[in-house]
Amino acid sequence: MSDATVTDLYEVTMAMSYLRERMTRPATFSLFVRDLPPERGFLVAAGLESSLDFLSGFRVGAEDVDAFASALHRQPRDLAPLLGMEFTGTVRAVPEGRIVLAGEPLLEVTAPLPQAQLVETYVLNQVSHQTVIASKAARCVLAAAGHPVVDFSLRRTHGPEAGCHAARLSAMVGFAGTSNVAAATADGLTAVGTMAHSYIEAFTTEEEAFRAFARSHPGPLTLLVDTYDTEEGVRVAARVLRDLERGPGSAVRLDSGDLEVLARRTRSLLDAAGLPDARIIASGGLDEYAVDDLVRSGAPIDVYAVGTRVGVSADAPFLDSAYKMVEYDGRPVMKLSSAKMTAPGPKQVFRRPGYADVIGVRDEPPPTDGVPVLETVMRDGTRTAERPTLEESRTRFAEDMTRLPLAARRVRAPLAPRAALSGRLTTLTDRVRRHIEDDVLAPSADSRRHERGATGSPRSVPRRGGQ
Amino acid sequence: MSDATVTDLYEVTMAMSYLRERMTRPATFSLFVRDLPPERGFLVAAGLESSLDFLSGFRVGAEDVDAFASALHRQPRDLAPLLGMEFTGTVRAVPEGRIVLAGEPLLEVTAPLPQAQLVETYVLNQVSHQTVIASKAARCVLAAAGHPVVDFSLRRTHGPEAGCHAARLSAMVGFAGTSNVAAATADGLTAVGTMAHSYIEAFTTEEEAFRAFARSHPGPLTLLVDTYDTEEGVRVAARVLRDLERGPGSAVRLDSGDLEVLARRTRSLLDAAGLPDARIIASGGLDEYAVDDLVRSGAPIDVYAVGTRVGVSADAPFLDSAYKMVEYDGRPVMKLSSAKMTAPGPKQVFRRPGYADVIGVRDEPPPTDGVPVLETVMRDGTRTAERPTLEESRTRFAEDMTRLPLAARRVRAPLAPRAALSGRLTTLTDRVRRHIEDDVLAPSADSRRHERGATGSPRSVPRRGGQ
Repeated sequence: MSDATVTDLYEVTMAMSYLRERMTRPATFSLFVRDLPPERGFLVAAGLESSLDFLSGFRVGAEDVDAFASALHRQPRDLAPLLGMEFTGTVRAVPEGRIVLAGEPLLEVTAPLPQAQLVETYVLNQVSHQTVIASKAARCVLAAAGHPVVDFSLRRTHGPEAGCHAARLSAMVGFAGTSNVAAATADGLTAVGTMAHSYIEAFTTEEEAFRAFARSHPGPLTLLVDTYDTEEGVRVAARVLRDLERGPGSAVRLDSGDLEVLARRTRSLLDAAGLPDARIIASGGLDEYAVDDLVRSGAPIDVYAVGTRVGVSADAPFLDSAYKMVEYDGRPVMKLSSAKMTAPGPKQVFRRPGYADVIGVRDEPPPTDGVPVLETVMRDGTRTAERPTLEESRTRFAEDMTRLPLAARRVRAPLAPRAALSGRLTTLTDRVRRHIEDDVLAPSADSRRHERGATGSPRSVPRRGGQ
Repeated sequence: MSDATVTDLYEVTMAMSYLRERMTRPATFSLFVRDLPPERGFLVAAGLESSLDFLSGFRVGAEDVDAFASALHRQPRDLAPLLGMEFTGTVRAVPEGRIVLAGEPLLEVTAPLPQAQLVETYVLNQVSHQTVIASKAARCVLAAAGHPVVDFSLRRTHGPEAGCHAARLSAMVGFAGTSNVAAATADGLTAVGTMAHSYIEAFTTEEEAFRAFARSHPGPLTLLVDTYDTEEGVRVAARVLRDLERGPGSAVRLDSGDLEVLARRTRSLLDAAGLPDARIIASGGLDEYAVDDLVRSGAPIDVYAVGTRVGVSADAPFLDSAYKMVEYDGRPVMKLSSAKMTAPGPKQVFRRPGYADVIGVRDEPPPTDGVPVLETVMRDGTRTAERPTLEESRTRFAEDMTRLPLAARRVRAPLAPRAALSGRLTTLTDRVRRHIEDDVLAPSADSRRHERGATGSPRSVPRRGGQ
């Protein structure tokens, strides 16, 4: 089986129907986040590259067809029209690392309808998950206010794959390192980590543990000091570092207790021991809120290690993301019901100073002070450019961040800029809504829809060309 | 690279040191959850089988050594002692599907210390993540009070791998199906799913969409009715189902709006249309809390589809899990500092009626009314038994659930049973604590530790054999 089976079954049932009905004209689907989670002032676009990998390699093979048939209790021959299907479409997207706002398309797929439908689940999964994590990690960097932040999340992410994404994405938004060896190797990240409490416990005293560690590891040491009694642990660590002349560049790690109080006490002890250069690393259940509190308290912590809460984005582990069809065969479409209304048609985001973004119709001229954010990243199923390096994405992020209003960068109660709809997009939205109300809903409301349908009366569908 | 690199770097630095110090005697690590998340009355053990797969296949290859060396800025030859290391230990664990409480070991690894340490990150990741999800899904089944529940989470889980775990684990706790084709195929689950709003929008009217869908899909249909106007959608669906004589076994799906109100209205419309057997499926942001509210309201919903919030365990996306060394070379160990104190020594959990569980020393005789919960599942690095089938795990879960006190099963404000420590474990804990306070901390507290260490005075380490 290929990744083509990593899909909700309904994508398959819909694709089958589209093929049977010969509805294979181009459709555009738009992937966006309706509303930001609480306590988020921005999102960091991510998940594009693995989506493009998926789309590049997308091919429905014989085993996939067997899986689809089995899931549907059908014969594989019923699924034959899907066999060999590849993704031949166009993708326009916000490059990884750029900052995006609620309602702004992160990605738009234009492809023959069955293809654009079949790839939904995977692409939505990648972009939603990775954007969640990149956005959470970015907040930690903001909270740390210049102190290095490192990623310790692998042990409690939702699987190793999620852990590797967390490591890469946190590096993209400015983390200084990760504990994750696989991710560090794959993505060229700085690997960090020293010892656990169990290491200390395996020796009969802390001091023996520290000295043994030093024997195996030349250069600066990081010693975990809170296994038994933190202050005493600091004293022992200081003695070992001094004895071995390993002070410069070395550090102690605090992993429990009142980190502010312990950091102050630790700093005093290290200074008194003649180790003013030894750093203090804090870890243990930290996230951007805790880091923010510690930084504001003035706690003398040099490096923040964040883990679980960031790797799973504990306070907002998912996004209210959607992959919505906005156009089929040149006809803009939208969903009317309840709160989930979406604007129709392919779109472009124009970034204006101060993040006064405008979401417009794809081809409309940019506002004089606006720059388009979505780029064509795939054409005819092929990437239009090399995969950006992590450094390039990191630069993109850093540049976008410098321009983000301060109120959006706050860790607590941030004020998220809101994108406006352009005049053209507003007009189009009104027109399509009116069309649905007048021509789709009204006739059937008075029970004439079926009759009209049967007579084949034409529907005044607004076409993009007619705008 | 193998999965051996899916590890925090510190496991590697510790293993290197242990090998250098010839500390390769058996260590036991215990994996447990300190406290349950809020609104959890129990946990469902999971993640064991993929952990055993990992341990069975664990072998540090040359590429892994290269990765470790690169991460540490060392030469591969410095890591040579790790090359070829396999996992040769014993694993005792709670089988997947069994209910566990806070503080109860889910898994204990006994292996040469470097091995037991190197596998920490992966095993902790698997057990923590999968136990989170299985526990969340179990709550949905309880909330649904007999109504079928299905899994729609794949699109927003933390990667496809997490989505496949969510599908399998939710089936284990009683879900009736999943939208995830890959998981359904791999694990023999029932696949479910029909159409999205985009499908309706791709046609000029809802009715055309429903009729087209029926042409591709023989048998009962599930029609999504809330794309434009829900009540009108139900009328159209009813007309199509009647016209095509496809009513029996068919259903309509509500995916937005006030589901209680809409379900009542939908039921009336379907009944009035002569479709009393057509079912109502509800979806859209549901979790156990929403399902509980709907069930208690008496809403005539037949099937609940839960997705994102369950697949990421939105209200509690991680567990306060730990993988702690509890014994090294026959010497029970524990961590004293702050709130993270853990009881020393290998353990067993004895389940008594009403979940009045007792956590005891591994080899102590069970209480007269207690049955051991941890089983030996791996010996000398090899599974002791076949992998249980999903059906076997499902049966284990169902049996445990029938015995769980009602107060623990509540969706809101559940009362979690608390395991007690046995007299022997309490005595051992006190003894080890006293030993640490007297012999590890006290001497250095009065600055004599280093001198004592230097004279090599023996430490009165309590040994398990001496209990």
